Amino acid sequence: MYRLLAELFPLCRSITGDGVRETLRTIQGQIPLRLVEVPTGTQVFDWTVPREWAIRDAHISDSNGKRIVDFRSNNLHVVGYSVPVDRTISLAELQNHLYSLETMPDAIPYVTSYYQERWGFCLTHRQRSGLPDGEYRVFIDSELKDGHLTYGELIIPGETDREIFLSTYVCHPSMANNELSGPVVATMLARWIMSRPRRFTYRIVFIPETIGSLTYLSRSLDRMKENIVAGFNLTCIGDDRAYSFLPSRSGSTLADRAALNILGHKHPDFIRYSFLDRGSDERQYCSPGVDLPVVSVMRSKYREYPEYHTSLDNLDLVTPAGLQGGFSAVRDCLELLENNRVYRATCLGEPQLGRRGLFPTVGTRDSHSQVADMLNVLAYADGTKDLIDISNTIQAPVDRLYPIIDKLAAAGLLVEQTADLSSRDVVGAGV
Amino acid sequence: MYRLLAELFPLCRSITGDGVRETLRTIQGQIPLRLVEVPTGTQVFDWTVPREWAIRDAHISDSNGKRIVDFRSNNLHVVGYSVPVDRTISLAELQNHLYSLETMPDAIPYVTSYYQERWGFCLTHRQRSGLPDGEYRVFIDSELKDGHLTYGELIIPGETDREIFLSTYVCHPSMANNELSGPVVATMLARWIMSRPRRFTYRIVFIPETIGSLTYLSRSLDRMKENIVAGFNLTCIGDDRAYSFLPSRSGSTLADRAALNILGHKHPDFIRYSFLDRGSDERQYCSPGVDLPVVSVMRSKYREYPEYHTSLDNLDLVTPAGLQGGFSAVRDCLELLENNRVYRATCLGEPQLGRRGLFPTVGTRDSHSQVADMLNVLAYADGTKDLIDISNTIQAPVDRLYPIIDKLAAAGLLVEQTADLSSRDVVGAGV
Amino acid sequence: MYRLLAELFPLCRSITGDGVRETLRTIQGQIPLRLVEVPTGTQVFDWTVPREWAIRDAHISDSNGKRIVDFRSNNLHVVGYSVPVDRTISLAELQNHLYSLETMPDAIPYVTSYYQERWGFCLTHRQRSGLPDGEYRVFIDSELKDGHLTYGELIIPGETDREIFLSTYVCHPSMANNELSGPVVATMLARWIMSRPRRFTYRIVFIPETIGSLTYLSRSLDRMKENIVAGFNLTCIGDDRAYSFLPSRSGSTLADRAALNILGHKHPDFIRYSFLDRGSDERQYCSPGVDLPVVSVMRSKYREYPEYHTSLDNLDLVTPAGLQGGFSAVRDCLELLENNRVYRATCLGEPQLGRRGLFPTVGTRDSHSQVADMLNVLAYADGTKDLIDISNTIQAPVDRLYPIIDKLAAAGLLVEQTADLSSRDVVGAGV
Repeated sequence: MYRLLAELFPLCRSITGDGVRETLRTIQGQIPLRLVEVPTGTQVFDWTVPREWAIRDAHISDSNGKRIVDFRSNNLHVVGYSVPVDRTISLAELQNHLYSLETMPDAIPYVTSYYQERWGFCLTHRQRSGLPDGEYRVFIDSELKDGHLTYGELIIPGETDREIFLSTYVCHPSMANNELSGPVVATMLARWIMSRPRRFTYRIVFIPETIGSLTYLSRSLDRMKENIVAGFNLTCIGDDRAYSFLPSRSGSTLADRAALNILGHKHPDFIRYSFLDRGSDERQYCSPGVDLPVVSVMRSKYREYPEYHTSLDNLDLVTPAGLQGGFSAVRDCLELLENNRVYRATCLGEPQLGRRGLFPTVGTRDSHSQVADMLNVLAYADGTKDLIDISNTIQAPVDRLYPIIDKLAAAGLLVEQTADLSSRDVVGAGV
Repeated sequence: MYRLLAELFPLCRSITGDGVRETLRTIQGQIPLRLVEVPTGTQVFDWTVPREWAIRDAHISDSNGKRIVDFRSNNLHVVGYSVPVDRTISLAELQNHLYSLETMPDAIPYVTSYYQERWGFCLTHRQRSGLPDGEYRVFIDSELKDGHLTYGELIIPGETDREIFLSTYVCHPSMANNELSGPVVATMLARWIMSRPRRFTYRIVFIPETIGSLTYLSRSLDRMKENIVAGFNLTCIGDDRAYSFLPSRSGSTLADRAALNILGHKHPDFIRYSFLDRGSDERQYCSPGVDLPVVSVMRSKYREYPEYHTSLDNLDLVTPAGLQGGFSAVRDCLELLENNRVYRATCLGEPQLGRRGLFPTVGTRDSHSQVADMLNVLAYADGTKDLIDISNTIQAPVDRLYPIIDKLAAAGLLVEQTADLSSRDVVGAGV
Repeated sequence: MYRLLAELFPLCRSITGDGVRETLRTIQGQIPLRLVEVPTGTQVFDWTVPREWAIRDAHISDSNGKRIVDFRSNNLHVVGYSVPVDRTISLAELQNHLYSLETMPDAIPYVTSYYQERWGFCLTHRQRSGLPDGEYRVFIDSELKDGHLTYGELIIPGETDREIFLSTYVCHPSMANNELSGPVVATMLARWIMSRPRRFTYRIVFIPETIGSLTYLSRSLDRMKENIVAGFNLTCIGDDRAYSFLPSRSGSTLADRAALNILGHKHPDFIRYSFLDRGSDERQYCSPGVDLPVVSVMRSKYREYPEYHTSLDNLDLVTPAGLQGGFSAVRDCLELLENNRVYRATCLGEPQLGRRGLFPTVGTRDSHSQVADMLNVLAYADGTKDLIDISNTIQAPVDRLYPIIDKLAAAGLLVEQTADLSSRDVVGAGV
């Protein structure tokens, strides 16, 4: 994953344009992504697909013609969606087009202006402070033209039409945690999903943030609302500091329940955010009328780590271990969803585990506790609780329960409840 | 308000009689109150309207004819509803008819005997302790006779028949917080209500406590149960120490929700009492079978401040600022109720605030938070939540949300949900 | 109770056999218990009634023929359900058949092997450590033969068919808290129940643990599910250390509510266990599909006190005061259930307590609180709350409310709600 991330890092992505295309084509080297092009001007809900932005070069040069701020050295130097410019101006005028961070003097900030035409440069505050008076040439060789918004989609069919949804975004230029960790982890999850049997169909999208999720929703909303039982927005999932969780708007969907179960047992120190802390595509997926069951399982959350949206969110911040941890957390959620069934014990009263070789035959002070998990699963397998409920109730992580359930099922003591569950408020439970 | 309170202070009120009438007539100088007279002997639920009490003079005089306890100097000196007496008795016998507070030696306690015929005097414990042995003349020129129970009612019609109910009581003699603050604040609220457009009809009553609320309920219960969506018992609302809240019996009515929202945001240190701490007319309004949504928003609650029911609850305890604070808290509740609607966002996904001039066009690290309130309101405007729900959920005081809602509604992004809300458990919500 | 317990203590009980029969016959001296014999081989749900175990003698003797471990001195010395043996073996081989507790060197542990044929001896670790090398004769004169499982049942009819269920077990050899306290307290409860009028029918069973409750359930489940409104598993209820509570699986049955109310008010320091801590017959009574409302009200819970399942759980551990405390706690629960009705106030508004002699006629600062209980009961008697609800809400112990309810009912102010209560989720409430 880290290698793929390093390969994608230098590309200058934005919400449209060749940077996105090149990123998606690189990912096509790993998974059979379908690229979709949506024309400029297409109406998507309240929005319109914008013109496509092409950037070839940009710099600020001093009176000696020396490039002192150069797009080629870091693509964060130019404000995203800057219009073309080629003028020589005074430092005073230039200051109106500069962006830097006084509190982080060595970081280049990430700034965009998608929906109003302007131009600008970003640089470290240290460099900005040292600019001598004088004339400067500002040069941006960019173009805003009718074109397309590009996204990638991968549908991995499963036994049923019920879907699990993964969404990540590919619109940020050279930053690592936010946001190349999401596309990279999504790519590896897709490979993992394709490698094994699955009940669910998986819908995985690589889109530009906001305008991309709106575009995708506007084309697929009915099908998504009908089929998706759980979704994960993959963002900021590559550093090795925290684990973080941001719920769906309701906070009680199957995706919330799965993620909270996994994080609660495996990473009990995870940071639990509120939907009020949202800031990515759950803003669209969970909006009124859309109401998809989408949560975010993250490492260090956007806006919450110092390097966020600066040049310091780089290949040092994201680590192989950080990516692997993020991948594992989401994979554990998917595995739980695949295994999450409503169970029913087949016996009235406790079964005789002993004659099935499941119980020690000498009853001593300690033997009671040895089969506690087994008896606890049976005690709560009442035909109304799914595996997440049972795991939460008996305080046992699901990966400890998978083999127990297999044993009990093999012994005929536990069956999947197939009766009507229409009274349950969580629609996806037990699917 | 303080001037009106000072003007009403000297009148000798009781649950019936001319003190009540004179108080109500003074209030009629401010608002068009309708006075209603209910005859002695009228059955009101389990009770009977008592005889009317008139008191003209009362004193204890020593053997020199000197008035040592004099009703004219403080009307708390005579036990309320005392029968007439004119006798000369020993100190020992007199002691059986005296009431004082050993723990507050300079306070005259407030004592009544409405439903059993007796007579008595109240005095400071200091004075009582100093009474020399000897003969004393006790003189009470009072009368208990068939007459009426008097109350005042003001109906202020609004756009709809749905009502907000304000109740306060006018049966206490010369005490200030408990209880002239309530009638005075109610008077000013009535003036404020009449001065502005309103969705709700307002039912405002000035009654004697207990027997008055029972009398009023017995005459209007069906109409009240049908129309009242929220009610406030106005009592102890004039000192400048605490803010206090006493819930309805269920604790979850629209009145509870409005008051808790306002107090929680504006006066977060408010004291939250239980319905078990009740002691005023909510005992009737919230009784089984009556079940009106009535709460009390107070300053220092009856029974909880040292001067309660003594001569020390006077014009020093209640202050102009205290009255103004109480008035404002209830006014804020009424304003919230008037503005409380169930909203629905009109867009699928977030709207494009930028093209409506509602969003800064340069996206920097900080710009996300600037429109957070706007986006939060839209995110929760799902057609099931009223303004109180939204304010509570997004942790924003309603007066910060009023202009935001106006802007969003003006931009067509937010509409009032008018569909059937029959599934909501709080009947009054969103009316 | 302590005398009965001491009388039963020496008997060598197991899950079947003459020890159980003799125990039940001794109890028949106190209450008219019906003994039921269920044949070996009878299928009870997933289990089969085992062969009957008879033990006449058992010892380990040294090479001098001296009995160094003797069943006659303590029946814990032989592993329960040991098959017969008469051999002379080396110490090394003997060690494979010995059980002791290194951490409690003076305690003989209690060990059984019901469902796999083996033999063994239990002894103190101190004695085991001192065994010299050499030859030992091991002798167990026991028999495993077709016979019966024996249990005792007492049905005490009441006004209605609705039942309260008490279950206790008689399968443990010479141990006192676990388990002779249960049978002894159950016996005294039965005498107390028979001595007084009762709404409920009482079903009281004295059974072997696990196989006994399964056997009993398999014969009576439909009737029990139809009639039982609350049940108590009586175990470990005789020492004088803690009070303990273990809930039903759902945690919200009438039995849970009654026990939590009594323990919460009378023994607020009681230890509240989770259903995950279960270990007695609630494992059967609360299993999926059985779902009886059974809880355990205990003193020091099994597995939680050091002497548990050893020879130190003896007549010193259980005390007359401990048994009396356990008896009283359960008796209070039964009394509460007998008195638990849904009440409705007959008046609209508060009634006039004064004219019924229920209220002091002089209203002073303090008089409000004197009748608080009375007014609180009336305020919450809204036809939906039972006595447990009211007691919990107004934070008053039920034995303080019994006389108040009697007074209010005598005055006609309170009646039992007889209307349909089908909407309540707790089926047994108010019966």
